[in-house]
Amino acid sequence: MEDPPQDLTVADLGEQQLLQRLYRFCAAEMVGDDGAVLTPQGDHLLVVTTDMLVEGVHFSDRTTSPEDIGWRSAAANLSDLAAMGASPLGLTLSLGLPATQSIHWLESLYTGMADCLRTYQTAIIGGDLCQAPLTVLSITAVGELLPHHQILRSTAQPGDAIVISGPHGMARAGLESLLNPSWDHRLTPDQRLAYRQAHQRPEPRLDLLPYLRQLCPTRVTGMDSSDGLADAILQICRASQVGAILNQDLISLAGLAQSSLSPAQQLEWVLYGGEDFELVLCLPPSPAQQLVQALGQGAAIVGHTTETQWVGLIDAEGNRQPLEIDQGFQHFRQ
Amino acid sequence: MEDPPQDLTVADLGEQQLLQRLYRFCAAEMVGDDGAVLTPQGDHLLVVTTDMLVEGVHFSDRTTSPEDIGWRSAAANLSDLAAMGASPLGLTLSLGLPATQSIHWLESLYTGMADCLRTYQTAIIGGDLCQAPLTVLSITAVGELLPHHQILRSTAQPGDAIVISGPHGMARAGLESLLNPSWDHRLTPDQRLAYRQAHQRPEPRLDLLPYLRQLCPTRVTGMDSSDGLADAILQICRASQVGAILNQDLISLAGLAQSSLSPAQQLEWVLYGGEDFELVLCLPPSPAQQLVQALGQGAAIVGHTTETQWVGLIDAEGNRQPLEIDQGFQHFRQ
Repeated sequence: MEDPPQDLTVADLGEQQLLQRLYRFCAAEMVGDDGAVLTPQGDHLLVVTTDMLVEGVHFSDRTTSPEDIGWRSAAANLSDLAAMGASPLGLTLSLGLPATQSIHWLESLYTGMADCLRTYQTAIIGGDLCQAPLTVLSITAVGELLPHHQILRSTAQPGDAIVISGPHGMARAGLESLLNPSWDHRLTPDQRLAYRQAHQRPEPRLDLLPYLRQLCPTRVTGMDSSDGLADAILQICRASQVGAILNQDLISLAGLAQSSLSPAQQLEWVLYGGEDFELVLCLPPSPAQQLVQALGQGAAIVGHTTETQWVGLIDAEGNRQPLEIDQGFQHFRQ
Repeated sequence: MEDPPQDLTVADLGEQQLLQRLYRFCAAEMVGDDGAVLTPQGDHLLVVTTDMLVEGVHFSDRTTSPEDIGWRSAAANLSDLAAMGASPLGLTLSLGLPATQSIHWLESLYTGMADCLRTYQTAIIGGDLCQAPLTVLSITAVGELLPHHQILRSTAQPGDAIVISGPHGMARAGLESLLNPSWDHRLTPDQRLAYRQAHQRPEPRLDLLPYLRQLCPTRVTGMDSSDGLADAILQICRASQVGAILNQDLISLAGLAQSSLSPAQQLEWVLYGGEDFELVLCLPPSPAQQLVQALGQGAAIVGHTTETQWVGLIDAEGNRQPLEIDQGFQHFRQ
């Protein structure tokens, strides 16, 4: 099928022709019935995770191409699977579309999503199309895992090391660089590219699963940092009823040390920038050190959990500063 | 937790408090992590089906209470599972919400959905909440089945009997009765209630699964009639590359015979009314008769498939009339 003319819209095609075009981006054997059929491995549990993205709220044509919207939304759901310890089986995409939406935009969205999924050996297995006054994406990813490989938020214990799988604040810096190109004139082209890639093409950390499974039967607690590093630590502490002390110097070094930002701004973006899609894990100190060594550059132990339910930073002089609750992402407040 | 004041909105609560309220409607052990965890039975396949519903496009406060929106949207997804031959494992609900949406409306929506799911021994297992300029629901249902119980659209053969699991046109009549109360002044109160119930509280035909599984290894093809009886027959014929001849008298009798509609209007609503959520099945004539007898009232053989790829009605005088392609639901055309 050839590329569509730039001005061809959803209304020009109608549903059946549109579906035929979009099936090309999906796992061929899956689509065309009332539901997609998957074959989980015996003895495996299923993990189901879902996300909605709304035009003007979660994405904008100003900073994000349709290919990148597709990639990022797939990556966000694969990151949720990784955070549970699950390998992906497939993903559904439901779309609300205005009749005026261009086919070129839509096929670019599917291209980005299919590219991301192919990178992680999975695919679009189904979905739904409907008319809507604005573009809405809803994604559900299905994954599988063996019961003893499941990672929850609620199992941390005092004295666990807190491990981050990679740098934070990068995606926030990439967004700034896209919104405000003059911001980063002191950055090298490589740094600029790395920040923008972190925002536009985040990589879900499914590559951690083999390392985490090797650690079994060590108790591993965690989630991803899609809503910010601070949010992840606060959520884990809340669910596990523990506190956490983070080393401010280690946290500051955890992402933006090479940028021209002030230390305070750097710390702000590292903790609250969001959309980094790293894993934040709590586990006993010795296996934590092994894990960090195995993962290499970017992975670090940044603090430890405590019995006292206080969550915050401590600097080299011993000054303490609490993490701010819900500053990560607070939806709905007007 | 007590009932919220009528004027309490999503913005008044914020995300964390909102989640705490909504968790009450969900399977307690499932929510609060990055994904829900399900345990499929060994050797079973998974079926995943998904639907999006947009305010003003798929539902309106004029004809549908939030409880009914919740019930209907859950029922539609359970119907897709039934149409594949699958038993439900659980359902996720993602919601886009304006900050001004009332908590009372939202909790009523969850109540209707949870009521429907409880009726069919399943539950809400997860979801996502986000801000949106208008209310959008996205539902994904997960089910399971043994491989040889899978029902596809593409396996019908010429000479199959076409079975409907129940009456059609009822939901369309219910909608008319709600939009235009004076329309049905000749109906008895029981008839009026039955039509309105068909629109507001449709029943997914998961009750058919034990009967269909008993028929195994008979080849059964099918889908649900959520987009209309005509659409279901056309879709099956297209996927299976067969034709179909429907008996016009049997079709007309298949739902609205007791109403005050003209025969032509009756036929129109039976074929194209939509949202009946019955199953339309093709199988060899002898097991088809057994199935219809087992299902009882409302179930009927209404025609048969043919080698010639023409799909239409034949009346008592032998007059033929084709089914109209895509008249069922044609989205996106302006």
